[in-house]
Amino acid sequence: MSPTPASQILEQLNWRYAVKAFDPARKLSPDEWHVLSESLRLSPSSYGLQPWKFLVVQNPALRKQLRTASWNQSQIEDCSHLVVFTTLKKMTPAYIQDFIRATASTRGQKPEDLLGYEKMMITNLTDNGRGDTLQPWTQRQAYIAMGFLMETAALLGVDTCPIEGLDPAKYDEILKLTGTDYATVATVALGHRSAEDGYQRLKKVRFSTSQVIEIR
Amino acid sequence: MSPTPASQILEQLNWRYAVKAFDPARKLSPDEWHVLSESLRLSPSSYGLQPWKFLVVQNPALRKQLRTASWNQSQIEDCSHLVVFTTLKKMTPAYIQDFIRATASTRGQKPEDLLGYEKMMITNLTDNGRGDTLQPWTQRQAYIAMGFLMETAALLGVDTCPIEGLDPAKYDEILKLTGTDYATVATVALGHRSAEDGYQRLKKVRFSTSQVIEIR
Repeated sequence: MSPTPASQILEQLNWRYAVKAFDPARKLSPDEWHVLSESLRLSPSSYGLQPWKFLVVQNPALRKQLRTASWNQSQIEDCSHLVVFTTLKKMTPAYIQDFIRATASTRGQKPEDLLGYEKMMITNLTDNGRGDTLQPWTQRQAYIAMGFLMETAALLGVDTCPIEGLDPAKYDEILKLTGTDYATVATVALGHRSAEDGYQRLKKVRFSTSQVIEIR
Repeated sequence: MSPTPASQILEQLNWRYAVKAFDPARKLSPDEWHVLSESLRLSPSSYGLQPWKFLVVQNPALRKQLRTASWNQSQIEDCSHLVVFTTLKKMTPAYIQDFIRATASTRGQKPEDLLGYEKMMITNLTDNGRGDTLQPWTQRQAYIAMGFLMETAALLGVDTCPIEGLDPAKYDEILKLTGTDYATVATVALGHRSAEDGYQRLKKVRFSTSQVIEIR
């Protein structure tokens, strides 16, 4: 294992910006998409519960509808891959038991060996434990995965635009999530910037280190 | 710009795990910390507003107090760098105007040129626009930065443990945030894993690609 050079990480994080215009002709390669989708799947989450589904919307008719539910932003249709982040609205004992089974099978254990862990999660996270704070919490987890996706893309030289300016209820309708356990929270469009997108030439605006990082 | 090799990204994301025991003797180098703190600062956020402060708690007496407010988890005291993620509880016109000034000064514009943008943000994000949904939203933004920090660390071969199991109100008290515009949401401990931490030898548990990624 040789660490990635610091200079390369910094160069790519500075290269990244929120793309306003994608080049619709430039698609991601299957290899690029493989790494990107793995970075979603490998993202950390609280308890390791992965309370999410990532919908990759490639159907042009669906993209067209989603665009109207996203303030008509062109990135929705012009990007190569559109990832819609959806998360659990509530946590159920059945979901936790699925996760316990996955854990046991991955690690060669018996689900019964993990009963204490299972019970603790059921107590803490299902209706009694969390109530209305559950969905904001699953949504926060999804934003870790958004971070992983956008940083991985930057490292690969792939462009992104995170989009929160959308109507989640309309997304749920268009993507047939209404009535399911999942709801839309945000999307990330991926692809390659158009040479004509003037925003790539604007300087990145960030507060200074001393404004946002304090040593205590 | 040469993209980071896909194999390296995947190797490092698989190497990462939530460290249970840090080696207290192994500290991050100043160079490592520089890249890590830059990855926080360069993280994307909605409107570019960076509604956060990252508190790096290095004082042992404070660490000891925070540990008691974090279910006595040893990582709080044994890590090299402890980053407490805090976010704005509400958005104020003054904050937005600071951001507008930073934008104008970075890009050689006059703040007056950005008046439309300023007004739009004030309408959408201050009391009238958001109310109770503002803090969950700033907290989600901070989780993007958590993602950036943890992925950057993994790429550098630096270990992390994200910690949500803490009492945010007690953290605010210990860190003297009570009564300020900022509140604690989570922490990430950084450093190097202890050779004795058995968790590093357990297989990572993730749902399969087809369980979490759907093509539409």
